[in-house]
Amino acid sequence: MPAPIEFYFDFSSPYGYLASCRIDEIAAKHGRATVWRPILLGAILKITGAQPLTSVPLKGDYSKHDMARSARLMGIPFKFPSVFPIASQAPARATYWLSDSDPTKAKELSKAYYRAFFVDDVNISDPQNAVSVAVNLGLDKDAVAAAINDPRIKERLKNEVDSAIAKGVFASPFIIVDGEPFWGSDRLDQIERWLATGGW
Amino acid sequence: MPAPIEFYFDFSSPYGYLASCRIDEIAAKHGRATVWRPILLGAILKITGAQPLTSVPLKGDYSKHDMARSARLMGIPFKFPSVFPIASQAPARATYWLSDSDPTKAKELSKAYYRAFFVDDVNISDPQNAVSVAVNLGLDKDAVAAAINDPRIKERLKNEVDSAIAKGVFASPFIIVDGEPFWGSDRLDQIERWLATGGW
Repeated sequence: MPAPIEFYFDFSSPYGYLASCRIDEIAAKHGRATVWRPILLGAILKITGAQPLTSVPLKGDYSKHDMARSARLMGIPFKFPSVFPIASQAPARATYWLSDSDPTKAKELSKAYYRAFFVDDVNISDPQNAVSVAVNLGLDKDAVAAAINDPRIKERLKNEVDSAIAKGVFASPFIIVDGEPFWGSDRLDQIERWLATGGW
Repeated sequence: MPAPIEFYFDFSSPYGYLASCRIDEIAAKHGRATVWRPILLGAILKITGAQPLTSVPLKGDYSKHDMARSARLMGIPFKFPSVFPIASQAPARATYWLSDSDPTKAKELSKAYYRAFFVDDVNISDPQNAVSVAVNLGLDKDAVAAAINDPRIKERLKNEVDSAIAKGVFASPFIIVDGEPFWGSDRLDQIERWLATGGW
């Protein structure tokens, strides 16, 4: 059994959202599993010295246009959030908390967070909203709320981000296939080809 | 006759080089002409506040890997230059000088500069090398050397860069199809589709 495809993403990342809508079907087509790992771009931008994409002069306007255009081409519903970018600690912590006991449900929760933020314009950085999205999936309200504030989960998330950085992850989405790194939702075609051919 | 496709690029840009190897055939397939406009990313980076791609921690290493990998996939010869990035005034000025009298030859010269830099590892920022590449295409040595130092051509290049920025160009390659902007050699597929369908 080959290693699962590693899918790194920030819940605040539009291109991460686009990739999240496709990565599992691409992997499945080639008999591969995926592991979803939320990261915090804020911590990574401190290392790369970059600004959030949409805050950069000229590039920011283009990016918003490109996100919507790419989403339309991919047939993915997308609405640029009214509050953006957001800190994504709350949904990331809830996801890691759940991932140990129920990885399948944790992936479902990640998808629900992305939909809430990029389709329904819910500010998922607000812990109350992060809890509500989880409750809608049948999770226990108090347990999720406690997880978001749990120092061990906070530490877990920090460690996950550090270990992503140690692997060279510097952006979202960032996808690693058998050690081969791919950055961006616009690399999904290359990933498909890599999976089909074993590389070039 | 529809307007030509505008292809903006910096001679120091690896992804600009990759796009330059494909943009004309893509345009021709859809009965379209192209106009090639060299720009100076250095001037633009002052506005966007970005660093040259390969100088960014983490991202720099990935980018070098991705450039070579994308070139292999596209079947384009590519060798990362031993001096990089470079200032690209000399080849850009020679190109604008030639473009008024002979746009076809100017495009040929641009291709020769890109090949010299990204295949043969010639540092085309050196005016002597920029002249030599032009001489190999049959251009007059003294005329090219004079053009590279001509204050009017220097001014012309500055104006071209300013007018590109005014159109929203912030990176290389940057391609405008009927007013629709596309950034990156990884948008060539979208450009093909835009040309085929008129947009989505």
